[in-house]
Amino acid sequence: METPVRVGVIGTGRIGRLHAELLERRVPGLSLAAVFDTDAAAAQAVGTTYRASVASSAEELIASPGVDAVAVCSSAATHVDLIVASAAAGKPIFCEKPLSLSLAEVDRALAAVAAAGVLLQIGFNRRFDPGHKLVRDAVAAGDIGDLHLVRISSRDPDPPTRAYLEVSGGLFLDTTIHDFDMARFVTGSDVVEVFARGAARVDPSVAELGDVDTAVVTLVHEDGVLTTIDNSRRAVYGYDQRVEAFGSAGLATSENLPAHGGVVRTVDGARSARLPYFFLERYIPSYVGEWEAFAAALREGTPSPVSGADGRVPLVLGLAAQRSAREGRPVRADEIAP
Amino acid sequence: METPVRVGVIGTGRIGRLHAELLERRVPGLSLAAVFDTDAAAAQAVGTTYRASVASSAEELIASPGVDAVAVCSSAATHVDLIVASAAAGKPIFCEKPLSLSLAEVDRALAAVAAAGVLLQIGFNRRFDPGHKLVRDAVAAGDIGDLHLVRISSRDPDPPTRAYLEVSGGLFLDTTIHDFDMARFVTGSDVVEVFARGAARVDPSVAELGDVDTAVVTLVHEDGVLTTIDNSRRAVYGYDQRVEAFGSAGLATSENLPAHGGVVRTVDGARSARLPYFFLERYIPSYVGEWEAFAAALREGTPSPVSGADGRVPLVLGLAAQRSAREGRPVRADEIAP
Amino acid sequence: METPVRVGVIGTGRIGRLHAELLERRVPGLSLAAVFDTDAAAAQAVGTTYRASVASSAEELIASPGVDAVAVCSSAATHVDLIVASAAAGKPIFCEKPLSLSLAEVDRALAAVAAAGVLLQIGFNRRFDPGHKLVRDAVAAGDIGDLHLVRISSRDPDPPTRAYLEVSGGLFLDTTIHDFDMARFVTGSDVVEVFARGAARVDPSVAELGDVDTAVVTLVHEDGVLTTIDNSRRAVYGYDQRVEAFGSAGLATSENLPAHGGVVRTVDGARSARLPYFFLERYIPSYVGEWEAFAAALREGTPSPVSGADGRVPLVLGLAAQRSAREGRPVRADEIAP
Amino acid sequence: METPVRVGVIGTGRIGRLHAELLERRVPGLSLAAVFDTDAAAAQAVGTTYRASVASSAEELIASPGVDAVAVCSSAATHVDLIVASAAAGKPIFCEKPLSLSLAEVDRALAAVAAAGVLLQIGFNRRFDPGHKLVRDAVAAGDIGDLHLVRISSRDPDPPTRAYLEVSGGLFLDTTIHDFDMARFVTGSDVVEVFARGAARVDPSVAELGDVDTAVVTLVHEDGVLTTIDNSRRAVYGYDQRVEAFGSAGLATSENLPAHGGVVRTVDGARSARLPYFFLERYIPSYVGEWEAFAAALREGTPSPVSGADGRVPLVLGLAAQRSAREGRPVRADEIAP
Repeated sequence: METPVRVGVIGTGRIGRLHAELLERRVPGLSLAAVFDTDAAAAQAVGTTYRASVASSAEELIASPGVDAVAVCSSAATHVDLIVASAAAGKPIFCEKPLSLSLAEVDRALAAVAAAGVLLQIGFNRRFDPGHKLVRDAVAAGDIGDLHLVRISSRDPDPPTRAYLEVSGGLFLDTTIHDFDMARFVTGSDVVEVFARGAARVDPSVAELGDVDTAVVTLVHEDGVLTTIDNSRRAVYGYDQRVEAFGSAGLATSENLPAHGGVVRTVDGARSARLPYFFLERYIPSYVGEWEAFAAALREGTPSPVSGADGRVPLVLGLAAQRSAREGRPVRADEIAP
Repeated sequence: METPVRVGVIGTGRIGRLHAELLERRVPGLSLAAVFDTDAAAAQAVGTTYRASVASSAEELIASPGVDAVAVCSSAATHVDLIVASAAAGKPIFCEKPLSLSLAEVDRALAAVAAAGVLLQIGFNRRFDPGHKLVRDAVAAGDIGDLHLVRISSRDPDPPTRAYLEVSGGLFLDTTIHDFDMARFVTGSDVVEVFARGAARVDPSVAELGDVDTAVVTLVHEDGVLTTIDNSRRAVYGYDQRVEAFGSAGLATSENLPAHGGVVRTVDGARSARLPYFFLERYIPSYVGEWEAFAAALREGTPSPVSGADGRVPLVLGLAAQRSAREGRPVRADEIAP
Repeated sequence: METPVRVGVIGTGRIGRLHAELLERRVPGLSLAAVFDTDAAAAQAVGTTYRASVASSAEELIASPGVDAVAVCSSAATHVDLIVASAAAGKPIFCEKPLSLSLAEVDRALAAVAAAGVLLQIGFNRRFDPGHKLVRDAVAAGDIGDLHLVRISSRDPDPPTRAYLEVSGGLFLDTTIHDFDMARFVTGSDVVEVFARGAARVDPSVAELGDVDTAVVTLVHEDGVLTTIDNSRRAVYGYDQRVEAFGSAGLATSENLPAHGGVVRTVDGARSARLPYFFLERYIPSYVGEWEAFAAALREGTPSPVSGADGRVPLVLGLAAQRSAREGRPVRADEIAP
Repeated sequence: METPVRVGVIGTGRIGRLHAELLERRVPGLSLAAVFDTDAAAAQAVGTTYRASVASSAEELIASPGVDAVAVCSSAATHVDLIVASAAAGKPIFCEKPLSLSLAEVDRALAAVAAAGVLLQIGFNRRFDPGHKLVRDAVAAGDIGDLHLVRISSRDPDPPTRAYLEVSGGLFLDTTIHDFDMARFVTGSDVVEVFARGAARVDPSVAELGDVDTAVVTLVHEDGVLTTIDNSRRAVYGYDQRVEAFGSAGLATSENLPAHGGVVRTVDGARSARLPYFFLERYIPSYVGEWEAFAAALREGTPSPVSGADGRVPLVLGLAAQRSAREGRPVRADEIAP
């Protein structure tokens, strides 16, 4: 067995800790080498748990000879600088979504990556969910014929904290961005028009941030396929994540599974379990999958399974959705990125 | 047991024949008295099968003392005149959707009904489907809290004939009209804005009729609820009819059932039955239900369970959807019916 | 279209009325010609509803030149005489299960049928249930490899009346008999040993009749396959009817479907509909199917799809089950019918 | 947070490694302190992975002051001696099933545990499976009324190695033993009679060992409830684990879930995922659950959630099943353990 690729994780919040654990324990070919967080205590805790070194700065982590690759899991505003620095150090990069909230910044990052010729993979983990992937594979294999419609429901179990919301970029860039990626992934076709309607229904106070927590988005793809997306920040019955593709020869769908298979049937009907509650339960296989793909791309020198361009387009669509919701009209993608 | 109400059925095409059978055989309190169709042979066949008299004209049927109530099942263009005539004869009326393709005509019909003080029930049978009804009842009972989102998929197994398409009024008035009604029924809230995108994907030649066979519609309701609808004229895997309502306290959904419960599990996975193929299989309980409601309203003198106004609003929304698709912008309902 | 075969129905209790309706309305190629019941008013009501003539005796019905085939739907004790009479009249026969509660009587009936060379089909309708049939077809096609285990749950929604119970022959001959047939149908292998345990749990008073209402039966088939059956006279959550076959290459199973597809999901889990409540709802397609098979066998001159021998063997197994439960030991089929 | 209880694991085969991982990583309040295996390399590998010390003998591990509790995960023949030694050392014990293949030996172990007054928990992990637990809880809460029938299907995805089979005690003691425990757990009633039929169908060569790999067992409980169990060593479609309880007021059932929620629907029907393949996937939550219960019992001084007696009875039933299969008759539990 070859030596594992040693990954340094920048940012040890919820998602960074998850990646640290998976890298160390679940993904053959990768290991956790070092961590850094501006919250030193948080970084230390993760380092201790997983026996990884704790860097005193992101720069130190990136420069460390013991770090072969960098996982950027810090807040969105820091992503581009860290990508640029990692690229300059010639190290492959995994970066959480969104790449940035600014297209110009994204372009700066992608230019640096291109110049350095390093691997950049964006954290659109849902592409690696077994059910969602089956939908895409069925489309790609022609199992459902010509594609006509895609329908995505993506509803979180609970809203994030106010502090997170304030830097999140808003629902369309923080949450729907996964669905924009999924729409492209499933259809294999780019999006030309976005129509979005949103509202602050879960927590009216998010309106103060100019944000929404409930939304419906319609996408028109280049090849005429129509996608509908609906989002909510709070589905009390669990993490509701569904993707379906409808075509001339059938339907491919990724449905939710209950938390367990217990059912009670009485004269009043049946009652059964709710959905698994959180992304740590629901999407673990997809997180493992994205790291396996990262390891494979490094090992085999193949292109990124979720490239920088794959990270850029959903940002365009998110910005289009924001404008659409604001202006009450469909917005063409080329209005945002001509 | 009281004497059943004797119903005369005008129009013995597919839906008229179905109503004839249900009236005669499945709905206590109602019976089939007479039929009429411009295709005399078709009418005669139905009359023979169900031992009903065959009228030589719609007028004769309406005037017949043996006919207590009139079921209007002929093509959409004839509905208003038949309603007006039936109202003038003082007879309760059941009318298939759509009431008409013209708002002015609808208003003429409703005025006649109001003047005569007769019962008018519109054939939005899906309100009586047990699964769909459960969704609405859960919303009305507050079981899912404040309503945020409604999602409707309504996909027919096969397109109608070209001849039918030519007089159908197009997808939005012929098919989506059921979903507009369902959106109002489930939410209990009127619709203020419609955004529609459609395409001729199943059969590109419907574009010659200015029609589409695949569509996505977003509705904004008065109370802020957002509804998405998707339609197709052909779902090869069966009749796909789903309604869901999402709220602060949960989800109520009406899912498809397979044609039967057989499953084969092998090392390659499971295979199971497709969906029931046609509306005659899928929606029979709802057709029986609407007739039971009709009989109950007559017996008890209660208001129509699906009133003329309930028939008019979906037409407004269908016209708004047509305009939206044509002009590429959201259309307010009050642009159509100020 | 050829002239339909005119069927006379003897016995217009619950099952006879069902057959009368299906013959008249649902099965192309068959029609209802006449009915008879010792309860003349019951017979008259069915005759009136379906416009069939009402015979004044079973003999008259059997002899009538307007009756091409006879459906024996009267109580079990009358079956053999009616079969013998119908055979003597040279008329094809459909007979409800059980053929008789006496093997000697069954043999008398089968001898008469053989002598007359008429078609005899036993009413094991479940063979024609689409889900159950899929299980058998999967086995027969080798889709699940070598068969190892069969598992049948067959639970009625409600016990019959005391009067019915008194002449029913007991649970094993009245209810389990369907499952004995199903075990043979699915496996295609005869049964060599029966072990049964039963109890009066639903209604302790059936113990006074020497009967049980709850049972578990194990069958050893000639080819080594093991079948388990469980029965109850009352499943309050609906009519629970499941069959599964397990083999070296997989599992084929016929599962219950809920009454409708409505589901409500909340923080407490999901609630959904109960099972359809009665055999009139659950098994209609199988009753239609058995009549279609009867019509086809007559039309094409093919052997009975459920022959007299198929009716005899389950009686042997039912008697073996009775003895097994009584004596507390496995009983070989050849102890009953050497 | 209090200091975790340090557990030493004896036996680092498949199940021992699983427990080591869970103890170290998944169960708050417990940690992995030491491991031992007669295969020193295997023990060393586990020790290295989880940073636990590696003992040079079971005795050393048991005696170690750094070991607060002992997990006995070695082969069945060693269990009793290790329990006796651990009890003598005053240490709480977790022991995998079966306790032993000999009742006399079990009694020696239980006597030692009783004398020492230490906690002994048997590894019947399935009691802690969320779905199975729901079945038991529904019964205990009276949600399904008086219990009438229990039905258990327990089918492994693949047979163990021949070497394992030779020391396993046979299907009834190795596999069905879990189901005997489940039957007691769900019903809360002891078993008075066992009837078993088995065959070597998956691999005819197990007959050389006097073993079977396919079986059906009927249990009569003290309170009259009837349980059926079916087993197979190979279910190619995945790990098939179902438990259901049927009573006067309903049904509680623990059904299998597919590996993921992807479904493809075409004109030919639906295809979906197979079941999760192995116990490491299927039963992880139950293994975590049993350790949480162990920790809680230690912390709170409460009785063992799965006591030594709970370990002994299934052995009696397994021996009764062996005798029943051999002698072709139902065997009373008190024939084995008067």
